[in-house]
Amino acid sequence: MTTRVRALYDFSGEPATSELSITAGEILILTRTDVGEGWWEGTNAKGQTGLFPEAYVQIHKETAPAVNLPQQPRYDQAPDDYADQQDGWDDDWDEENDTYSEIGPPNNQIRQSASHQQINNYTNINLPPAPTEDTISITSTSAPLKRSGIFAKSGDSYILGTTTVSVPDNERTFIINTENGYFWKQIGDPYTVRVASPKKETKFKGMKSFIAYQLTPSFNNIAVSRRYKHFDWLHERLVDKFYLIPIPPLPDKQISGRYEDEFIEHRRVQLQEFVDWVCRHPVLSTCEVWMHFLTCTDEKRWKTGKRAAEKDNLVGATYCAAIFPPEKSLLQTQVDGQTENCSLFVHGMDGAVKSLLAISNEQTKRFQLQWKKDFQRVGESFSELARALEIDERRAITNINLSNSVGQTAGVFISIGQMFGDQPKSDWIPFCDRLHIYRGILGGFPDVLAVQRGAMQKRKECEKLTAEQKMGNAQLQEVNRRTDIMSYALLAEMNHFRAERDQHLKETMKNLISSQIDFYNQIITKLQMAQRYFE
Amino acid sequence: MTTRVRALYDFSGEPATSELSITAGEILILTRTDVGEGWWEGTNAKGQTGLFPEAYVQIHKETAPAVNLPQQPRYDQAPDDYADQQDGWDDDWDEENDTYSEIGPPNNQIRQSASHQQINNYTNINLPPAPTEDTISITSTSAPLKRSGIFAKSGDSYILGTTTVSVPDNERTFIINTENGYFWKQIGDPYTVRVASPKKETKFKGMKSFIAYQLTPSFNNIAVSRRYKHFDWLHERLVDKFYLIPIPPLPDKQISGRYEDEFIEHRRVQLQEFVDWVCRHPVLSTCEVWMHFLTCTDEKRWKTGKRAAEKDNLVGATYCAAIFPPEKSLLQTQVDGQTENCSLFVHGMDGAVKSLLAISNEQTKRFQLQWKKDFQRVGESFSELARALEIDERRAITNINLSNSVGQTAGVFISIGQMFGDQPKSDWIPFCDRLHIYRGILGGFPDVLAVQRGAMQKRKECEKLTAEQKMGNAQLQEVNRRTDIMSYALLAEMNHFRAERDQHLKETMKNLISSQIDFYNQIITKLQMAQRYFE
Repeated sequence: MTTRVRALYDFSGEPATSELSITAGEILILTRTDVGEGWWEGTNAKGQTGLFPEAYVQIHKETAPAVNLPQQPRYDQAPDDYADQQDGWDDDWDEENDTYSEIGPPNNQIRQSASHQQINNYTNINLPPAPTEDTISITSTSAPLKRSGIFAKSGDSYILGTTTVSVPDNERTFIINTENGYFWKQIGDPYTVRVASPKKETKFKGMKSFIAYQLTPSFNNIAVSRRYKHFDWLHERLVDKFYLIPIPPLPDKQISGRYEDEFIEHRRVQLQEFVDWVCRHPVLSTCEVWMHFLTCTDEKRWKTGKRAAEKDNLVGATYCAAIFPPEKSLLQTQVDGQTENCSLFVHGMDGAVKSLLAISNEQTKRFQLQWKKDFQRVGESFSELARALEIDERRAITNINLSNSVGQTAGVFISIGQMFGDQPKSDWIPFCDRLHIYRGILGGFPDVLAVQRGAMQKRKECEKLTAEQKMGNAQLQEVNRRTDIMSYALLAEMNHFRAERDQHLKETMKNLISSQIDFYNQIITKLQMAQRYFE
Repeated sequence: MTTRVRALYDFSGEPATSELSITAGEILILTRTDVGEGWWEGTNAKGQTGLFPEAYVQIHKETAPAVNLPQQPRYDQAPDDYADQQDGWDDDWDEENDTYSEIGPPNNQIRQSASHQQINNYTNINLPPAPTEDTISITSTSAPLKRSGIFAKSGDSYILGTTTVSVPDNERTFIINTENGYFWKQIGDPYTVRVASPKKETKFKGMKSFIAYQLTPSFNNIAVSRRYKHFDWLHERLVDKFYLIPIPPLPDKQISGRYEDEFIEHRRVQLQEFVDWVCRHPVLSTCEVWMHFLTCTDEKRWKTGKRAAEKDNLVGATYCAAIFPPEKSLLQTQVDGQTENCSLFVHGMDGAVKSLLAISNEQTKRFQLQWKKDFQRVGESFSELARALEIDERRAITNINLSNSVGQTAGVFISIGQMFGDQPKSDWIPFCDRLHIYRGILGGFPDVLAVQRGAMQKRKECEKLTAEQKMGNAQLQEVNRRTDIMSYALLAEMNHFRAERDQHLKETMKNLISSQIDFYNQIITKLQMAQRYFE
């Protein structure tokens, strides 16, 4: 049977590519879902067939889910996209992720908002347009529901203490009370990890090639080689395990091929941001799966660790069993005040970050295209003037060289134009890369808040049951202790994020401003060169 | 009978005004020619009626010339536009010029190209768009013909010596041979004239008001009060008298009413440029009509001088009788080489000036509108971020003030936007005012060259006649002497222009560049203020 899809948002396809422009509400016949890289192929009413982002459409009516369509050889085969079953190091990876160039179907809320962020993020790469306000709201309203659904499973059982899990010592996390509030306890020394410029690696005697990033931790200085799909796997593990910690986003899956080198370097920068953020987090930076990812160099050990991480019990709400906060119980009202304030703030900052990304994006384009052109045109007009003067000077008896001065000025303006074209690489683009983190984290907070709200709800139910003599006082105490743990975790995470954010934003602003100061100083130097010709 | 006009060029009317947009080739029914200020009123095929520049249309078919249409009370009556017959000081002025706000029907080639220049020139005043290449060429091809026509009358008789005029001593002009070539001899000391900010004057007990500019020569420091129409009258006298000297252009007649104060100041600047150029010219700066204009403060003497100037015999080619060059006769080939080169140069520089005016005009708009807006939007996004942070800081235990730093930065970017909006007043707009002179002078040179070419033609005819014994040798010698005078005058004027231009352009470039250096320095100062908030 034919599968139809309805466009949720407008998407304008890149001209002269296999992409197809679609309009929100438009119905298309789905012709292929095995295109890969998060793209689907469809035919519109005009009979035009082409690719559009899967995330931009939804299956129409009760037609068979697209995933059930017969698999066909993949479209737009990229060198990194071959299945490589004989490749032990990489075996049983989800091949859908086995590429450094995807727009993946957002499979959790953090990715989703991350991929929206990406859409605003970067001009050098062809991407779908920024989604409408609706998209965002769809996301952040639907996600918590889904999440609390998942939570309900592990959550209730944890709160009610129906499941018991053993917590190995190395998994224990402590929350301490400082003068600045509750914080995750830092275990071990802080460290950094350098993500080095990626290199193309090959296997099967060059039959297969892919991009690998070199990660070098400061504590052992041993580089490991990781591909995007490894990061992607890690990210999923972290999201599953730490339901009360918003995980920083990965660079977005997206179409590569155009501007590939810039794209790869851009991705490296964003991976570095991700790694930095994890390294600075007391819990994430010490957890087992992260350490495994960061240090494992042996193929066999890699596979064992991978299996272990995937079988981990201490995930979701259950992980709270590993959290050890101060003894004293929390004042509910105080906690509520802080969580409400937090969600207000998250909403506000999410909006602000969105506008900043939009305007940075525009500024980037303006500098790279219009301003570069404008200054070069000024330069060209001056050289036209210089040529005219030169005609007359030929005849002049005195030795005039105004034409030379004007010609030199022409050159100055043309090179200023070039500077305008290059400048975004030094200010707005890095600025966007830094803000990328926030789109992810701010996108994650609503879930975390929902998780805690769910727990508080459960707690009230239990209080009611106890009032009705249907639950013992001892058990209620235990429920309160466990829900307090969740609140403690949330408070610790909020404080950690605040501290991180202040440092990180401060640097971000500082870099933006000083890079612009440098830029205008360079222009002045150039103009002063021109000025000297007219002294 | 109905008069129809055909649009020569596109003109887009200012929205929400009485202006009507017209498209080249469009036929309109002419409904009024007495609108004044160089505008006509017409009705298009859609039945829309509105104003368009008279210069942008031409009478269609052999319909009655518009000027013959019955006069009706003037449209858009301006305070300065009343007839004032009882006003001796101003009597018998052409009332069509009695306004500081007109686009006049170009009545000579210099005005014409000046008014084209104006169209490119200044963004703060609503003006028709820059005319197409054709307009310019129509102008500069048609004009010389017309001019040589006029020339033929006075020219031939002068060259053939059929008219004899007496040259008073004070009218004698000398050309001297310097190491830098032939130059006009400077008579008397150089001086300057300051054109002071205009003030509204009234007469008939305030019944009539108009703008008068205060001119103060450095040689007597006595201010005289002159209106635009006086300048306009003077300009006509100079154009008539000095056929071998391109007269600098006046500010253009144009629609006022919008931005009136800016408009008046802008006109003052352009009048100052005109006055400066005349003051620096050895011949113009000493001629009687100019001195009369500059010094006469007595009403009776003014009227006498005015009549005298209008009855002046030493005009056109006849004026050459007042020019006394070196004795030795010129090498024809050498003169031809220089004149050909001059017309090449004039053509080239005219094109260059046009592109410079076009790009300056664009830059002005970009700074005043787009860039101002862009930077203000950046600022607004930052203040959105500041507000979000403020929400969170309320709850923070430690005293964080990042929101304040970000808020301050927002202010900085908004004020930088303001600076972008104001900057054109300091660089591109004055730059355009300076270039205005060139559009006029370069527009005048083709005529001057045509006059000299005409004389050379006549000379050849006379040589032929002499060869055929139809003209005496003595008379041929006289013809050669007189045509040599014209060539001398042209060479002197070319050299004078070259020297003037080099000085003037040098200053113009210097001012543009240093004003931009100042601008970028101010931006840096602002950004450094922001930077300090993140130290």
